[in-house]
Amino acid sequence: MAVRIIDTHNLENIAMGAAVLGTGGGGDPYVGKLMAMAAIEKYGPVTLLSPDEVGDDDWTVAASMMGAPSVMIEKIPSGTEVIRAFEAIRDYSQKEIKALYPIEVGGVNSVVPIVLGAMTGLPIVDIDGMGRAFPEAQMVTFHLAGKQSAPMSIADEKGNTLIVNGTESIWNERIGRAALIAMGGSVMTCDYLMQGRDLKASGIHNTLTLAENIGEKVHSLRRQNQNPITALLDVLGGKLLFEGKISNLLRRNTGGFTKGEAYFDGINSYQGKRAMIGFQNEFLVAKVDDEIVTTTPDLITALDLETGFPITTEVLRYGSRVALIAIPCDPKWRTEKGIQVAGPRYFGYDIDYTPLSV
Amino acid sequence: MAVRIIDTHNLENIAMGAAVLGTGGGGDPYVGKLMAMAAIEKYGPVTLLSPDEVGDDDWTVAASMMGAPSVMIEKIPSGTEVIRAFEAIRDYSQKEIKALYPIEVGGVNSVVPIVLGAMTGLPIVDIDGMGRAFPEAQMVTFHLAGKQSAPMSIADEKGNTLIVNGTESIWNERIGRAALIAMGGSVMTCDYLMQGRDLKASGIHNTLTLAENIGEKVHSLRRQNQNPITALLDVLGGKLLFEGKISNLLRRNTGGFTKGEAYFDGINSYQGKRAMIGFQNEFLVAKVDDEIVTTTPDLITALDLETGFPITTEVLRYGSRVALIAIPCDPKWRTEKGIQVAGPRYFGYDIDYTPLSV
Repeated sequence: MAVRIIDTHNLENIAMGAAVLGTGGGGDPYVGKLMAMAAIEKYGPVTLLSPDEVGDDDWTVAASMMGAPSVMIEKIPSGTEVIRAFEAIRDYSQKEIKALYPIEVGGVNSVVPIVLGAMTGLPIVDIDGMGRAFPEAQMVTFHLAGKQSAPMSIADEKGNTLIVNGTESIWNERIGRAALIAMGGSVMTCDYLMQGRDLKASGIHNTLTLAENIGEKVHSLRRQNQNPITALLDVLGGKLLFEGKISNLLRRNTGGFTKGEAYFDGINSYQGKRAMIGFQNEFLVAKVDDEIVTTTPDLITALDLETGFPITTEVLRYGSRVALIAIPCDPKWRTEKGIQVAGPRYFGYDIDYTPLSV
Repeated sequence: MAVRIIDTHNLENIAMGAAVLGTGGGGDPYVGKLMAMAAIEKYGPVTLLSPDEVGDDDWTVAASMMGAPSVMIEKIPSGTEVIRAFEAIRDYSQKEIKALYPIEVGGVNSVVPIVLGAMTGLPIVDIDGMGRAFPEAQMVTFHLAGKQSAPMSIADEKGNTLIVNGTESIWNERIGRAALIAMGGSVMTCDYLMQGRDLKASGIHNTLTLAENIGEKVHSLRRQNQNPITALLDVLGGKLLFEGKISNLLRRNTGGFTKGEAYFDGINSYQGKRAMIGFQNEFLVAKVDDEIVTTTPDLITALDLETGFPITTEVLRYGSRVALIAIPCDPKWRTEKGIQVAGPRYFGYDIDYTPLSV
């Protein structure tokens, strides 16, 4: 297999496509693009490994932004946070880390490992732990497979670092979340330090490539001035839920998350109907006229009706015209444990999960 | 100098006397006594070193309870927390730690290093960083001397541990405090890892011996059925502020602290007068008839009027008959930086510090 390189060209597609799969979370692709562009221009391109190119015994680690995306866009990470998070986990674990990978698919979190890869010279693995974005650190297929997130390193822009060694991934989430609020609301973390065999067995494969393909499609449709929604649904295997204009938006930073609801008045063939999406960093439930039409762990995404560009929770605004679409989640999430960890009841919705049919 | 040993006899005096100097905080001496008794009976007595017996190059570390004392008395530490906090900082720092010391003087926090000393065989140094108790981790003479609390280790009873590497002691306090709330409100910590020369230069000397002498006095007066208040004031170099009965008590666990106010109706020669003390783990201000009579960093202590036993914030209760006394703080706290770090304004009181005169 030829060596695959992430450079400033495919980076833009990755960030864009990852934001489509990020279901409103995982960070704004424009911010992600800027962060990784700066790193690649300074340090050079990054090698992308397919999962089967990772040695079974090689140590790998995830690098990601953790916190409220609304906070992060006001203090864009400079790269020093993620390198300190990486050094902290490397020095603490005393492992020779051979490759990096994204914890989730998202406009920022798909590119954080790319930034770190450029800085360290380490390759990135084409895999992640969600196949989408989720708000909490234990919501990964690694956790479903019984892997631990500890030790987790955390670094902020002020130079503070910490190592959290919780007995369970949920304790790392609780302790890390409390700490990151004290650290200003948004930090960089490294966790799920794993050997290649475990990463390959428990991760969701080829999601960076999938994001790149989606991003390429969005950009090429945009260049051709074509309406991208229908074409994108084909690529995504997804379904149109609603077309509307944001009529009301409740968004607050609380508990280390960006939480809220967005309300939509229907347009085009949805004239006269109303819709709502509830979010905690990511979009979790979608209702049309009081009927639940999609819930987590299936993916709900908001696309700009004109451009097809994904809109993340922190940049939703009154008056935006959007298409709401839904995409089936990876089958790993449709298990009993998957639903328990990331289904609607975990987030306090009194609803059973009904798998999205397309 | 003869080897000095802490055994179950002088332990009781240390815990009692430390609670007198603990100004309402630092933990209940009965809890402290039980914890250390169990450790000494199981592992044997502990050696006490005077500060000049510590080698200049020897590494030493403080061990203490951090959190709300009201929480701790409901989940008395078993010893496994403090040994895990110790192992975490030892393994992280890779230092050969030669001796332990208390971070503050208090009914629990003077004995936490004794518990750890019994378990590890390490000696305890007759020194501390406050000469009293204070609620926050940066309120130590080590901080006044420019020493850093990082790395700080934290361990809870569930098996979670963390290492906090803040750029400043105040960041360790903020991050550690947020984390300990997520961990249940009360944890064990090790911090201010220092070499002997720094410990001796910046600590307050011989405070375990002072606590032992005070405890011995309280116990012997009690055995002789003598009113202990006047005799104790002589030993302490302190001053009687008030004698009264608690008429109202506002106490809440918030932000990882036990905070509140206690109100007193005067008795004996204080009949007709009223008093108030405000606290955040420790007693911070005392008012008599709306006149501020003592503030932090000077010591305010509540003693049971009959027995002379100290009463900590978490065991204050309606109807208790107490003597409120004040003791001048160590001169290290009466400096500009000392007042800035632990004076009344830091705690939100709009009052200048006036040194207590006895």
